[in-house]
Amino acid sequence: MSDARYDELRERLAETWDLAKLGAIAAWDQQTMMPAAGGAVRAQQLATISKVVHEQIVSEELGELLEELRPYEESLDHDSDEASLIRVTRRDRDKELRVPGELREAQARAGAEAFPVWVEARRTDDFELFRPHLERNVELRREYAACFDADEPYDALLDDFEQGMKTAEVREVFAQLRDGLVPIVAEASEQEIDDSCLRGHFPVEAQREMQKLLLSRFGFGEDTWRIDPVAHPFATSFATSDIRMTTYYPEHEMRGVFAAMHEGGHALYEHNVDPALERTPLCRGTSLALHESQSRMFENLIGRSIEWWSWAYPEMQRLFPDQFRGVELEEFHRAINKVQPSLIRIEADEATYSLHIILRFELEQELIAGTVAPADVPGVWNERMKRYLGVDVPDDAHGVLQDVHWSRGTIGYFPTYALGNVISVQIWEKVLDDVPDLMEYVARGDLTPLTDWLREKLWRHGRKFTPQETLERVVGGGLDSGPYLRYLSGKLGAPTV
Amino acid sequence: MSDARYDELRERLAETWDLAKLGAIAAWDQQTMMPAAGGAVRAQQLATISKVVHEQIVSEELGELLEELRPYEESLDHDSDEASLIRVTRRDRDKELRVPGELREAQARAGAEAFPVWVEARRTDDFELFRPHLERNVELRREYAACFDADEPYDALLDDFEQGMKTAEVREVFAQLRDGLVPIVAEASEQEIDDSCLRGHFPVEAQREMQKLLLSRFGFGEDTWRIDPVAHPFATSFATSDIRMTTYYPEHEMRGVFAAMHEGGHALYEHNVDPALERTPLCRGTSLALHESQSRMFENLIGRSIEWWSWAYPEMQRLFPDQFRGVELEEFHRAINKVQPSLIRIEADEATYSLHIILRFELEQELIAGTVAPADVPGVWNERMKRYLGVDVPDDAHGVLQDVHWSRGTIGYFPTYALGNVISVQIWEKVLDDVPDLMEYVARGDLTPLTDWLREKLWRHGRKFTPQETLERVVGGGLDSGPYLRYLSGKLGAPTV
Repeated sequence: MSDARYDELRERLAETWDLAKLGAIAAWDQQTMMPAAGGAVRAQQLATISKVVHEQIVSEELGELLEELRPYEESLDHDSDEASLIRVTRRDRDKELRVPGELREAQARAGAEAFPVWVEARRTDDFELFRPHLERNVELRREYAACFDADEPYDALLDDFEQGMKTAEVREVFAQLRDGLVPIVAEASEQEIDDSCLRGHFPVEAQREMQKLLLSRFGFGEDTWRIDPVAHPFATSFATSDIRMTTYYPEHEMRGVFAAMHEGGHALYEHNVDPALERTPLCRGTSLALHESQSRMFENLIGRSIEWWSWAYPEMQRLFPDQFRGVELEEFHRAINKVQPSLIRIEADEATYSLHIILRFELEQELIAGTVAPADVPGVWNERMKRYLGVDVPDDAHGVLQDVHWSRGTIGYFPTYALGNVISVQIWEKVLDDVPDLMEYVARGDLTPLTDWLREKLWRHGRKFTPQETLERVVGGGLDSGPYLRYLSGKLGAPTV
Repeated sequence: MSDARYDELRERLAETWDLAKLGAIAAWDQQTMMPAAGGAVRAQQLATISKVVHEQIVSEELGELLEELRPYEESLDHDSDEASLIRVTRRDRDKELRVPGELREAQARAGAEAFPVWVEARRTDDFELFRPHLERNVELRREYAACFDADEPYDALLDDFEQGMKTAEVREVFAQLRDGLVPIVAEASEQEIDDSCLRGHFPVEAQREMQKLLLSRFGFGEDTWRIDPVAHPFATSFATSDIRMTTYYPEHEMRGVFAAMHEGGHALYEHNVDPALERTPLCRGTSLALHESQSRMFENLIGRSIEWWSWAYPEMQRLFPDQFRGVELEEFHRAINKVQPSLIRIEADEATYSLHIILRFELEQELIAGTVAPADVPGVWNERMKRYLGVDVPDDAHGVLQDVHWSRGTIGYFPTYALGNVISVQIWEKVLDDVPDLMEYVARGDLTPLTDWLREKLWRHGRKFTPQETLERVVGGGLDSGPYLRYLSGKLGAPTV
C-alpha cells in the first residue's frame, strides 16, 4: 500500500523537478545563448514555470499524499532516500504554503522595479535615487519573515539559503572570524609582493585552453559538461550528467582561471549527487554555504596552492609566455595569494573577502531589525570598511551600491559566501586527516583522492540532510571559524589566533 | 462579460504556450548544446512538458471557457485575432481530445523502440530487422487515423501537418507533378555540367562567415537570432524576437550555404509573425507546407538565382579562392542548378527532389490502406525509383531505410516537402506580379521588397488561417503544380508542360 503511494510521490516529484529543470535550462540559455531581444518574452516564460512549479508543490493532492505517507516514513530509516524525500518535500511544501501569493508577487514586482533603478544609481553614484527601493525591499522582506515562526526575523531569510541555520550561530562564528581576520589582514597587507605578472595581456584562446586543461583534472565524466563565457560566472545542472559551467576570459588580467576552478567546485557537487536521486528535489547541493565550501575549496585550497601549480604553472608559462617568462613558480604563487584590502567584494582576495561579507551580514540584520535605516546605510558602510579593512570609500558606487543583491530584494544570501570559506577549511582538515599525502597527488595534478573522499562523505547525499546534519556527518560538529583562521595565518605568515 | 472571459483565455493560453516554448528551448539545447550524457534525463524532461501541455489543452476549464466564448466569437470578424484564437484553440483541443492517452503513449513507445533498430538496420542494410517495427508503427497510425471521421484514413495523418488538407487534393496535384517532372528530369539530366567546383575543401571558418554574410541580407532584426552547427539543420523560435537557426559546415562540399538559406526562410516566417500573437498558439507558421514554401523560396528561388549570386559570388571567391578562382559566375550558377537523379532524398537537386517525395507519399497511402504490406515495401521502392528517377537502388540502406521518419512512426509528413516546392512558386509568381523588378533588387543583395510583401500577405498572420485559407488569401486559389513545372522547365531549358 504505502509503497504504491510512495511510487506515486516519486513520479509526481519527478515531473515537478523536470519542470523546474526546464526553467533552469531556459535561465542558462538566457545568460549564455539568448539573443538580447529575446529577453522580454523569456522573463514571462520563466515567471510561468515558477508559477506552475509552485502550484504543483502547494497542491492539495501532494499534501494528502504526504499525510498518507507519514506511517511509511516513520517505518523507514531517517537516512534512507525514501524517508529523506518525504521529509524534505514536506518541509519545502510547508514553507511554500506559508507565504501568501500576493506577497510573493509584490516581492517579485518590487525587485523587478528596483533593479534598473539600482543600475542607474550605481552608474551615477546616486544612493538617494535607490533609497526608496531599498526601503520597499526591506519592508517586504520583513513581511516575508513575519510569515514564519522564527526566533528572530533574519532567521527566516537565512533559512531560504541555509535551511534550519540560526542567525545567532552565524553571528557568533562571524564575530570570531572578524576578530581573527582583522589583524591577519593588517599584517599580511604590509608585505611587499609584486603581482604585476597577473596583469597585462591574456589572449582569449589561450585562456580557454588553460581553463579546460585545469578542469580536465577535476574528474568530470566524459560528455557530461560544457563551459561557456558570460558576464557573471555561475554553474548549474540539468541532470547529474548534464553540467553547465560558465566563466569569463578578461583579457587584461588572470582571474578567469580562478572563476573556472570556482565554478568547477560547484559543478562537481551537482555532478556527483547519487543518480538514484535524479529527478527529485534532493538532486542538488544541500545549501548555498555547503555549495560555496566546494567552490572555495577548488578555487583556493587547491587552486592557490603551490602543489597544484607545480604541475600547472609550466602550462601557464607555455600559454602566456609574455606574462610569465622569467617569473618563478614561487613568485607566481606569492602573487596569486597577495593580500590587499580593496573596495570591491568580487575582486577581494581570500583573506579580505570574508570581511566584506561580515559587513553586509551585520547591515542586513540591522536593516531588518530597524536599528539602521536605509538612509543611514552608506555612512555605516563607509565607517566599517575603514574599521575592518582599513580602506576609505570614495563614493557609494564603490561602496554600498556595488552589489546587485539588495536591488533584487535578496537579503540573507550574503553570509553564505563567508560560511563557505569557513566550512571549506573545516572539511579540508578532515580530508587531510584521512589522506595525509593528499598534496603529493595534487602536485601531480591528481585530484582523485580528494574527489573520492568528497563524493563519499558529502556530494552523493545531495539535499537529503540539512546543512547542520550534513556538517555534523562530514566534520563531526557545527560551524567553527578556527580551521579557516589557522589556515590563513599559516599561509600568510601571520601569528596563529 | 465576454471580454473578461476572453482575457482569461488569453492568459491561460499564454501560460500553456510559455510551457510549450520551454520545451522547445530544451529540444533546441538537446540538438545544439547538450553534452551527450544528458540525453536520458532530457528525454524525460521533454516527455513531462509534452504531458503538461497536453493536460492544459484538454482541461475541462479550457473546454468550458471556449463554450462560454461562442457568442463572443460569433460577434467578431472571422479574421480578427480574437475570433481566430478561439477558433484555432477549439480545433486544436477537439483534435487533442480524440486520441486516447494509451494510444498516444503506445505510439511514443513504439517510436522510441523502433528508432535504434532502424539505426542498426540502416547500418547493416537489414530491412528484415526493421520490418516488425514498421508493421507496428503502421498499425498504430491506422488506429490513430480511426480516431477521426476522415474521408480516408490518410487524411487524418496529413491533418497533423496540414490542417484540413485532403489527401485527394494532394494526390491529384502530385500526379500532375510527377507526370510533368519525369520528362523534365530525364531531359535535364542529359546535359553535361561540370560541378566539380562544389566539391573540394571548404574551411569551416570561411563557411561560417559566408553563411552569416548571406543571412545578414535576410533582414532579421538586430539581436534577434543566432545560428549554430548541428548534424541535421532545423530552425525554431522561442519568441518572434528569439530565432534559432541551425546549419552545418561540411568541409568537402558547398551545401552548407543552401542549408543556411533554407533555414533562413523558415526563420523569417517565425520572426515576422505579428507580435500581437506572441505567447499564443497562433504565433507560428500555419503549416509545414507553407513553412517549407518559405524555406524553399529562399534556398532555391533566391538562393539558386543568377541575380542573387551576382552580388554574393565575389564573396564566395574571396572566401574560397582555391575552389572558385577561375570559375565564372555563369559556370557556378549552372553547377548549383545541375540536375542529377540520385538515390538519397536529402542530397537531391531542386528538380528531382519532389519525385523522391511523391514515391514516399504513394507508399504511405498504400501502407495505411493495406494495399502494400511492409514486407513488400523495398521491392516497390526500388521499382519506382527506376521508373521515376531512372536509378537502380543497390541496397535498402540507400533505399527504403534512408529516412528516419517511419522509424518514429511519422507518416503523413513527407508530402509537405513537395507541397512546399509547389506553393513556393505559386507565391513567387504573385510576388513578381506585384514587384516586377524584384530581381533587380535581388541582384544588389536587397531582399526588402520580397520580405515586405511576404510579411504583409503571409508571415504576420501566423496560424490564424488554415493552409487552404492562407493559400486562398495569398495566391487567390488552391494547390496548383503548374507554376512549379513552368519554373523548372524555363530554368532547365526543357519544354513547357
